[in-house]
Amino acid sequence: MSTRTRTGRRPGPSSTRDEILRAARRRFAEDGYDRATFRRIATDAGVDPALVVQFFGSKQDLFGAATVSPVTLAELAATPAVDSSASPGLRLARLLMLWLEDDGARQALLARIRSASSEPAAADVVRRMIGDQLVEFARAMDGDRTDVRASLLATQFLGIVFARFVVVAEPLASMTGDEIADWLGPTFDLYLRGPVDDSRPGRPAQA
Amino acid sequence: MSTRTRTGRRPGPSSTRDEILRAARRRFAEDGYDRATFRRIATDAGVDPALVVQFFGSKQDLFGAATVSPVTLAELAATPAVDSSASPGLRLARLLMLWLEDDGARQALLARIRSASSEPAAADVVRRMIGDQLVEFARAMDGDRTDVRASLLATQFLGIVFARFVVVAEPLASMTGDEIADWLGPTFDLYLRGPVDDSRPGRPAQA
Repeated sequence: MSTRTRTGRRPGPSSTRDEILRAARRRFAEDGYDRATFRRIATDAGVDPALVVQFFGSKQDLFGAATVSPVTLAELAATPAVDSSASPGLRLARLLMLWLEDDGARQALLARIRSASSEPAAADVVRRMIGDQLVEFARAMDGDRTDVRASLLATQFLGIVFARFVVVAEPLASMTGDEIADWLGPTFDLYLRGPVDDSRPGRPAQA
Repeated sequence: MSTRTRTGRRPGPSSTRDEILRAARRRFAEDGYDRATFRRIATDAGVDPALVVQFFGSKQDLFGAATVSPVTLAELAATPAVDSSASPGLRLARLLMLWLEDDGARQALLARIRSASSEPAAADVVRRMIGDQLVEFARAMDGDRTDVRASLLATQFLGIVFARFVVVAEPLASMTGDEIADWLGPTFDLYLRGPVDDSRPGRPAQA
């Protein structure tokens, strides 16, 4: 799979603005909102700090621009790499683990998760992401309580990202994306397709 | 259930040291490591900042002392409230949601999760917590890959805590602990008891 296909970006000379955005994304991903400074981001991008301010104004605005993933889950789902005869849950698990392999997507997600812990604006972005990105997959399953199902998918995914990349906890940090997807698949199938108990609306049916 | 039973603490007059620890736990839980200052914690506890330094020395030491949960999962598991004829996964899910209802336990956990994003010492505590606290439950199931099972349980739980209390994402933030436990139960049963594929060691068997 070429870079062109993965990211949807045309190859070509990158502008100073793009350099700053990439440096900011990496820095927010590694250090979180509070510790990522304009000065450090400017140094990483090889420009004057005043230029960063000139381009983006506030730190919140820079954060917002830098943490948009260069490739969306929907774009990635449309690539042939994730087609398979696996269950919907396993397909989604593989898709999410593949998404994390894209440097830009992973850094954007990590930047948001790390920053959400202290910066309300970042928490707001994560909140909307939970609602928006995964609800389409839950909705495609045509079940009840789509909002709950999408949220549960998101929490399991967020927990994996947190343990694997923020806390770097073993054995998760060393497992391959495929190995993790194999464990997540059945869980995602439960969340996507598990029946709701008719006698207790909103609750899953217990085995 | 009385406070005595829940926390294992005897009621009685609290010392200044305890007041500082409680104030620090609340502050780290709400603001994370970087934004929680000695000055603010001292103000919350109604003492002079110099006294906080005198008692605890460094911020890392104060963080370490303040974010020990006043009630452990094992202690809570021994209380009658969580006995039930439910599956092991559902029992564990109810136990974890009950644990979050204890103010001290929830704040200690939130403080660690919020702080792990920027402070390596906090990440280290979360890393050990993932390994230690839940591995006993996975081990009691007598399955293969206990370490993977415990880690997956931890990631799903961490994701729930993150979405419910850090990001405050709906519908999870408004659901009751019991409602969430009902959804998590079948997932935890998968992680605790799901079979491993003999033809691909370390991987779960796919349905």
